Amino acid sequence: MGSTAGQVIKCKAAVAWEAGKPLVIEEVEVAPPQAMEVRLKILYTSLCHTDVYFWEAKGQTPAFPRIFGHEAGGIVESVGEGVTELVPGDHVLPVFTGECKECAHCKSEESNMCSLLRINTDRGVMINDGKSRFSINGQPIFHFLGTSTFSEYTVVHIGCVAKINPLAPLDKVCVLGCGISTGLGATLNVAKPPNGSTVAVFGLGATGLAAAEGARIAGASRIIGVDINPKRFSEAKKFGVNEFVNPKDHDRPVQEVLAEMTNGGVDRSIECTGNIDAMISAFECVHDGWGVAVLVGFPHKDAVFKTHPINLLNERTLKGTFFGNYKPRSDLPSVVEKYLSKELELEKFITHQVPFSEINKAFEYMLQGDSLRCVIRMDA
Amino acid sequence: MGSTAGQVIKCKAAVAWEAGKPLVIEEVEVAPPQAMEVRLKILYTSLCHTDVYFWEAKGQTPAFPRIFGHEAGGIVESVGEGVTELVPGDHVLPVFTGECKECAHCKSEESNMCSLLRINTDRGVMINDGKSRFSINGQPIFHFLGTSTFSEYTVVHIGCVAKINPLAPLDKVCVLGCGISTGLGATLNVAKPPNGSTVAVFGLGATGLAAAEGARIAGASRIIGVDINPKRFSEAKKFGVNEFVNPKDHDRPVQEVLAEMTNGGVDRSIECTGNIDAMISAFECVHDGWGVAVLVGFPHKDAVFKTHPINLLNERTLKGTFFGNYKPRSDLPSVVEKYLSKELELEKFITHQVPFSEINKAFEYMLQGDSLRCVIRMDA
Ligand SMILES: NC(=O)c1ccc[n+]([C@@H]2O[C@H](COP(=O)([O-])OP(=O)(O)OC[C@H]3O[C@@H](n4cnc5c(N)ncnc54)[C@H](O)[C@@H]3O)[C@@H](O)[C@H]2O)c1
Ligand SMILES: NC(=O)c1ccc[n+]([C@@H]2O[C@H](COP(=O)([O-])OP(=O)(O)OC[C@H]3O[C@@H](n4cnc5c(N)ncnc54)[C@H](O)[C@@H]3O)[C@@H](O)[C@H]2O)c1
Ligand SMILES: [Zn+2]
Ligand SMILES: [Zn+2]
Repeated sequence: MGSTAGQVIKCKAAVAWEAGKPLVIEEVEVAPPQAMEVRLKILYTSLCHTDVYFWEAKGQTPAFPRIFGHEAGGIVESVGEGVTELVPGDHVLPVFTGECKECAHCKSEESNMCSLLRINTDRGVMINDGKSRFSINGQPIFHFLGTSTFSEYTVVHIGCVAKINPLAPLDKVCVLGCGISTGLGATLNVAKPPNGSTVAVFGLGATGLAAAEGARIAGASRIIGVDINPKRFSEAKKFGVNEFVNPKDHDRPVQEVLAEMTNGGVDRSIECTGNIDAMISAFECVHDGWGVAVLVGFPHKDAVFKTHPINLLNERTLKGTFFGNYKPRSDLPSVVEKYLSKELELEKFITHQVPFSEINKAFEYMLQGDSLRCVIRMDA
Repeated sequence: MGSTAGQVIKCKAAVAWEAGKPLVIEEVEVAPPQAMEVRLKILYTSLCHTDVYFWEAKGQTPAFPRIFGHEAGGIVESVGEGVTELVPGDHVLPVFTGECKECAHCKSEESNMCSLLRINTDRGVMINDGKSRFSINGQPIFHFLGTSTFSEYTVVHIGCVAKINPLAPLDKVCVLGCGISTGLGATLNVAKPPNGSTVAVFGLGATGLAAAEGARIAGASRIIGVDINPKRFSEAKKFGVNEFVNPKDHDRPVQEVLAEMTNGGVDRSIECTGNIDAMISAFECVHDGWGVAVLVGFPHKDAVFKTHPINLLNERTLKGTFFGNYKPRSDLPSVVEKYLSKELELEKFITHQVPFSEINKAFEYMLQGDSLRCVIRMDA
């Protein structure tokens, strides 16, 4: 282990002191990892809507001061007691949801919703002792999603760390920690479009474009992008989306428009909007007999999914996914390999790059709707 | 071909002259089969709720006089022009929905919802010429579901005829033409419970009991029957149902009761009630991460399926099935083989038997809720 093992590390972190206020780069103290934890040196991190959402803290219990960030690439600096799977120097992606490998979900081939380490947006501390590993002059700073990657060093439960091929460039694969794997997996693991099929993608943000990328990889012949923002269409072409529908251009439900375009319905649809009407349309636009719709977007808490049951009885399938059904530790390494083998293209998702000192710009790009992913370089 | 080929056959049929009035055994004339049709000698037929429903004709356009019946076993008497797959003497099951083998549905591995021959409850004539093959003194009598098996002879489109092993006893396998295959296939083809899993069956009529029989065959370790009629429970024990829940015994939603009994939810659930609340409960009672719910029951036309989308995002799957996803011609012969190999038990579904002359008794048994299946013997 390096000379810092077992020691408190002082380093820079971008601290959110208050909801919606620019982050402040501070010197923080990062305690050593405890049992089943590792301390990571973060090299690259990227910004996702979820960071912005909890930073704005509209409608949730705000937990400040807090260190956000959950998409990142880093290297293990030191490991806590009982950690055998990871050693200092390993290249890793921290993940906002975990895989304990012991619970019923982890043991199921199908689920990735680990009972122990499933995403918890309220918890701002480590599960081992219910405390934070971050502090400034003794004042604890809350964690976020168990990752808090807007810091040069962070402490993460080993269940939330995917060990990846050290040949993978961390400035690219760092974006695989959330929405992009979610969209990709929604298509490849859940919708599973057969080669040559027709796929509709609702919502052409980073998640939806990753779903489209999955459809391209799966060999879909028609990829129909649906978005209420026509600005999304030109970018989507890079992701294999070859037809576009704006629901606002039609005076009837978009599912009817899609059914007409496709002789009865699409083979697969993937909803990446979070909008309940889009969810219903995404389901009702699939072909009877074999169509599969996959919901990805995170809905409003009062949203109700409504459909006539005959739409189901006519042999349609409706599913939802969380993190694209990828098990973080078991499956993410293979997604990195897909990038290394050039099957998966990540460069086109990375529209911006900023040094850590300018992290607030990443927030601006996202709020302006200009960026898919802005990668933040920690050593600059 | 026999001496009757190409001739009009005079035989007995049970004619429904008016909605809800007892059937009358009449001498009818059955025209020879036209192109792509076969004429069958029916040996055994059984009564299903769908016959009763359309005989009562509440809320549908009544089409009388009509010959009901759609679960049956028979023998090919003669074949029409262009028929090569069937010859006189073949043992067959007529089916209320068909398989043309040419359309997109028939070509899909997943669908059994043939575009040409999909169930049509309104049509009372043959598709070849839009006419009936039945008449009495020149007055046409309407067909029902393309099968009209309450007749000693009937004419059926070859797409609606499954050729089966001639060793199979037609007085038993005649019940495979509708609800029993539907429930069985809902479990075996759609829900696909892994060995050792926990399965909930909503509704313990013939369809639900067949779903339970499927769960037993699949090796489910717990089969939980849910019905609002506690009388259904004792019979259900014969079908492997080993736990019972009556929603009326609880003052909270039955999905919560089931989740508590099963440490978070059942692995699979199959809804065979037609009741929209049961459909919603059947979905919401499956375990997150891997649970699959299958809807079978036919809903009220104004029913709306409602659930919070988070129930889907937590990796539950919702599907519906039609005729248990069996393709009538391709798949039913293998269901017959399952009976012959003693994997599938059919005897326990056959609670009553009557001679053709007493067919109205079969209606009484069903209306009284006493019977699962009443087999009607045509030669008596
Ligand atoms: N389930 C998971 O594990 C997971 C992971 C990451 C993201 N998400 C969710 O996926 C969704 C998409 O994420 P994103 O980062 O790509 O968001 P985004 O905001 O960048 O993209 C959403 C797109 O949907 C479009 N849209 C909104 N309403 C629409 C409608 N009614 N019809 C058609 N298009 C509509 C918007 O114009 C936008 O382009 C969000 O709800 C997010 O919470 C889920
Ligand atoms: N999809 C298909 O291809 C297909 C084929 C055959 C039958 N069906 C449908 O399957 C359903 C069942 O058919 P069946 O012949 O077994 O009917 P059935 O009437 O014999 O049985 C239905 C059972 O459901 C129970 N039930 C009703 N409401 C309930 C509720 N809210 N909760 C729990 N149990 C409830 C009833 O007490 C009854 O025991 C019907 O809706 C029928 O139309 C569908
Ligand atoms: Zn786990
Ligand atoms: Zn067909």
